[in-house]
Amino acid sequence: SADLDKVRAAAEEFLELFHNENPRAAPIRPRIAAVMREIDMTGTYWHTPAELAFGARVAWRNNARCIGRLYWNSLQVRDLRAVSDAAGVAEQCFDHLRAAHNGGKIRPMISIFAPETSIRPAPRIWNEQLIRYAGYDQPSHRVIGDPRYRAFTAEVIKRGWTPPEHPGAFDVLPLVVETVDEGPRMFDVPSSVVHEVPLEHPELPWFAELGMRWHAVPVISNNRLEIGGVSYPAAPFNGWYMGTEIGARNLGDNDRYALVPQVAERMGLDTSDEATLWRDRALVEINRAVLHSFQANEITITDHHTESRRFLVHLEKEERAGRSCPADWSWIVPPMSGSQTPVFHRYYDAEDLVPNFFADDEIAHRALHGAPPAFR
Amino acid sequence: SADLDKVRAAAEEFLELFHNENPRAAPIRPRIAAVMREIDMTGTYWHTPAELAFGARVAWRNNARCIGRLYWNSLQVRDLRAVSDAAGVAEQCFDHLRAAHNGGKIRPMISIFAPETSIRPAPRIWNEQLIRYAGYDQPSHRVIGDPRYRAFTAEVIKRGWTPPEHPGAFDVLPLVVETVDEGPRMFDVPSSVVHEVPLEHPELPWFAELGMRWHAVPVISNNRLEIGGVSYPAAPFNGWYMGTEIGARNLGDNDRYALVPQVAERMGLDTSDEATLWRDRALVEINRAVLHSFQANEITITDHHTESRRFLVHLEKEERAGRSCPADWSWIVPPMSGSQTPVFHRYYDAEDLVPNFFADDEIAHRALHGAPPAFR
Ligand code: HEM
Ligand code: HEM
Repeated sequence: SADLDKVRAAAEEFLELFHNENPRAAPIRPRIAAVMREIDMTGTYWHTPAELAFGARVAWRNNARCIGRLYWNSLQVRDLRAVSDAAGVAEQCFDHLRAAHNGGKIRPMISIFAPETSIRPAPRIWNEQLIRYAGYDQPSHRVIGDPRYRAFTAEVIKRGWTPPEHPGAFDVLPLVVETVDEGPRMFDVPSSVVHEVPLEHPELPWFAELGMRWHAVPVISNNRLEIGGVSYPAAPFNGWYMGTEIGARNLGDNDRYALVPQVAERMGLDTSDEATLWRDRALVEINRAVLHSFQANEITITDHHTESRRFLVHLEKEERAGRSCPADWSWIVPPMSGSQTPVFHRYYDAEDLVPNFFADDEIAHRALHGAPPAFR
Repeated sequence: SADLDKVRAAAEEFLELFHNENPRAAPIRPRIAAVMREIDMTGTYWHTPAELAFGARVAWRNNARCIGRLYWNSLQVRDLRAVSDAAGVAEQCFDHLRAAHNGGKIRPMISIFAPETSIRPAPRIWNEQLIRYAGYDQPSHRVIGDPRYRAFTAEVIKRGWTPPEHPGAFDVLPLVVETVDEGPRMFDVPSSVVHEVPLEHPELPWFAELGMRWHAVPVISNNRLEIGGVSYPAAPFNGWYMGTEIGARNLGDNDRYALVPQVAERMGLDTSDEATLWRDRALVEINRAVLHSFQANEITITDHHTESRRFLVHLEKEERAGRSCPADWSWIVPPMSGSQTPVFHRYYDAEDLVPNFFADDEIAHRALHGAPPAFR
């Protein structure tokens, strides 16, 4: 069939890449022949552990949105393809959080659960990240917590999740794992694997009183990993945070924690006139607080200037290796002080390469609305 | 010929647009017939003053890089198609600077010189803007002035321009106008049309001691305006400044005036550690100084927050008018505090529409290197 032809072509392309970059691997011809037989029989094939690890690393290397790719080759890969039940997936996700946190010296890591096969759909994790904070709609139209997840929060409550007695701004949402046998199931994330950093400012003592904090390890959990024609819908991965993700976006965006006006007011800025650049000033101070607090707690974090320079080193290395390095300008350029970073001042390749990570509209919708289920 | 067919098609498309949006204009059929006859006879045609003004305004409306398009319909159009000699072009450019400055209440304006015809190439202005500052290479590898124009400056010196006895950081470059008869000719921009704003900071008294200033009116002078198959290579236009163009890019970029480290040092910031965000802090203060100084001197200027909101109003208006509004995210999102502006959080149409402004590689090269001449 046409579908199987696609799998065969993708498998062959990937195996060639793997053997090109791993000259000491077993000979390629017998491996391709074996994989083709396997596809004939089952519609898919089983990656060797070395292929799996290489595939995941190259998926990172190929992801045009990620500025942190310099260390792509050191990604730690947890081969969990034998795990396909909801409780097993949840348990291993919590272990991932523990192992990746590593006492603050965060390790880039991916956990790869059972793949999609023709006879058995793979498990799915609904949440955008393993740790995300609930958002509660209030009668006053204010939201407590993260407004991005107000629909998701309402949906998990409808499904039976009990929020804390006193809903707070940083209540960790339950993990929703869906399998074809069990449907969607919810699991509370044990507090022992949720490491958080209370935010304080190096110079402004009142900042700590805002009661802000953020979690240490960003594990994106809803992207589908695709390697050589095999699809791994559950393959949560993490790096460490770049400060702007927290300070500029999660805390700064108007439709997230929207901290800028509050901080500007505490700073005593004139918010009646945009030309005082009160937004810009408050934004910088929030971001200073994030970087300072992570550093004070000895949690790995990077700033956008350093990371931009590292990314240019990565581009050079990729060029020297004779590879194209696709990059999406609008994702690579940081959300603050764009033109102060060297990544602003150049163009990038725009190819789509596989292996890679994907999130289609349905996946994205499920992560924000907690619906519809994948298997109905 | 194929070329003439293109002109005919472009003319017809433009005339239809003009008549659609100007229902009270003279009937379209006779106008199209007349234009087709004119193209048969001469290879091109002469826009009516109304067509010319409409074409220039729509070129602005169609330009995907410009965030300032809300006021596209109020662009003032100077019809200077009768002017084609170098001295005449230069003289009118200086008049443009005077009229656009308007005592500080800056008027968006375009001056349209003789078009390209089959028998007579149009004049060209080499400079990127009518007012640009010279950059002088120093033996120490430091540059006095604007490093962006060091090659252009060296070239005009070779061509006979005499820089001031004591080269400074803000010496206005001569205007270079090239015609097919005269070749490239240089004209000093009279100081009476160069309005400048000395930069001071609302709170930091030492800022004024840096001796920074910038000119009030940004007139882009090397773009080719194309309307309905007619090309106007010399058609300088201006709006007012958005502060970040000066504060973030011209003064802040590392390969321009590179003011950020100097200001950070005067602010007493710890520049030994990127995580102090000293670059971001200094950048904000430079931009505050720009906005403050223009306002104090009663020169029209806009900030990136206000302008982003206006642009969203423009998008809504265009949508209501049933038009697509192409926009280039990487140009529209301001170079600082990107995610704090609403334009960051959406996608845009990416069509290429004409009428529009264009700058091909040769034009861009000439503006930076003062070579090669257009007519050899
Ligand atoms: C090691 C430190 C890392 C840093 C500093 C880093 C940094 C970033 C940043 C700043 C973004 C943009 C996020 C946003 O704007 O929402 C991003 C996106 C992304 N990164 Fe990385 N990253 C790291 C590790 C990784 C790893 C280990 C992987 C996968 C194995 C990865 C894959 C991705 C993907 C797929 C995206 C796009 C996410 C999306 O579409 O929402 N990154 N990264
Ligand atoms: C009225 C106030 C205006 C504002 C605030 C404004 C703002 C801007 C800004 C911020 C940019 C980006 C500049 C850069 O990053 O280098 C830009 C680009 C541009 N604008 Fe506007 N603009 C205005 C008026 C105009 C007018 C009157 C025209 C033409 C009639 C125009 C045509 C363009 C074009 C063609 C570009 C792209 C320039 C290039 O490719 O280098 N703008 N504008």
